[in-house]
Amino acid sequence: MKSHMEQELEAVLAREGDHSDASHDISHMRRVRRTALEIAAMETGANKDVLIAAAYLHDLVNLPKSHPDRAKASTMSAEAARPILTELGMDEDTIAATCHAIEAHSFSAGIAPRTLEARILQDADRLDAIGAIGVARAFYIAAKLGSALFDPEDPFAKTRPLDDKRFALDHFEVKLLRLPEMMTTEGGRAVARQRTDFMRQFLDQLAGELAD
Amino acid sequence: MKSHMEQELEAVLAREGDHSDASHDISHMRRVRRTALEIAAMETGANKDVLIAAAYLHDLVNLPKSHPDRAKASTMSAEAARPILTELGMDEDTIAATCHAIEAHSFSAGIAPRTLEARILQDADRLDAIGAIGVARAFYIAAKLGSALFDPEDPFAKTRPLDDKRFALDHFEVKLLRLPEMMTTEGGRAVARQRTDFMRQFLDQLAGELAD
Repeated sequence: MKSHMEQELEAVLAREGDHSDASHDISHMRRVRRTALEIAAMETGANKDVLIAAAYLHDLVNLPKSHPDRAKASTMSAEAARPILTELGMDEDTIAATCHAIEAHSFSAGIAPRTLEARILQDADRLDAIGAIGVARAFYIAAKLGSALFDPEDPFAKTRPLDDKRFALDHFEVKLLRLPEMMTTEGGRAVARQRTDFMRQFLDQLAGELAD
Repeated sequence: MKSHMEQELEAVLAREGDHSDASHDISHMRRVRRTALEIAAMETGANKDVLIAAAYLHDLVNLPKSHPDRAKASTMSAEAARPILTELGMDEDTIAATCHAIEAHSFSAGIAPRTLEARILQDADRLDAIGAIGVARAFYIAAKLGSALFDPEDPFAKTRPLDDKRFALDHFEVKLLRLPEMMTTEGGRAVARQRTDFMRQFLDQLAGELAD
């Protein structure tokens, strides 16, 4: 059962969200909300309203990786979120906390998270890149970017440098399996470890299927 | 260590194969060869030369799903394979057996497999759609075809009809999980069951990550 605020936020996204990118659709926002609340349950004192609002609105402005203003997208999302949150009747302190979590969630912004909620949002957003959903997204996005599934001569890069621009499978070693180290909360690390274990199972199964 | 014939066949594919489709690259041909030999080891009396040659050349002519001559692609592949096999010094009976396996491997051709080798090739080709490699290919191909990852409102189609043109995830129920029933050899069924078990683990993990 969604709260009134969640229903309002979903309506805002349906109206104003960016629908061009299937890997950042409403489902991504809901998963980030869900994971943020899961992490919050393992921490003390996180404000749930801030987490829910920030999870829904963190990608309100979503620029492609190649866009020159990409590093500013999270700040632009925070600015675009402010009038929406005011409209929803949120008080000024909660709005400020939500906007900070949004602006700090992206690496490329280079804004250090100063609050527990900002750290939780950052962890929750990154966690959506791993686990079974991470496997699905990695291959889906690779096809969109024109990368190959893997190097037929050396799928697991035993005798060549990793190159995740060319090969989707390389993205696991380059980035996805390293996510646990990048978590900033204990709860985030716990979820990251479980999902990383699953990705290792996936890679083991794949290696068995590809073995010559 | 590849045999002389395998090296020759790889050279032929590098020269004459269709390189436009990353999901049917040399790696697919090698996996089909490998799986065909794995099945042959569980059966009695399969001709390995036929299996290897047919595995490498079964998609020599590869037409997109929308192409009007799509149903003829396997017959065209068999015809294109014949002069290559003659060139490689293969005797006439082995060539005929290889060409039959190639022409009969595709469902849409509607040619019933009359030999053990033809049934093994059909099973091995279909097995490449499932397991960990099947998961990777399902999401990769869905992105190419413009489908979404899944329905954000109902990912596992609990309250709607399945539609694997719109949602990559629906393809598991529509087709991939049904593959074991479609195997025509005992060995094929054994491999299919192991790979289907893995796909169910993947779907269970995903369900846990998506649960509200």
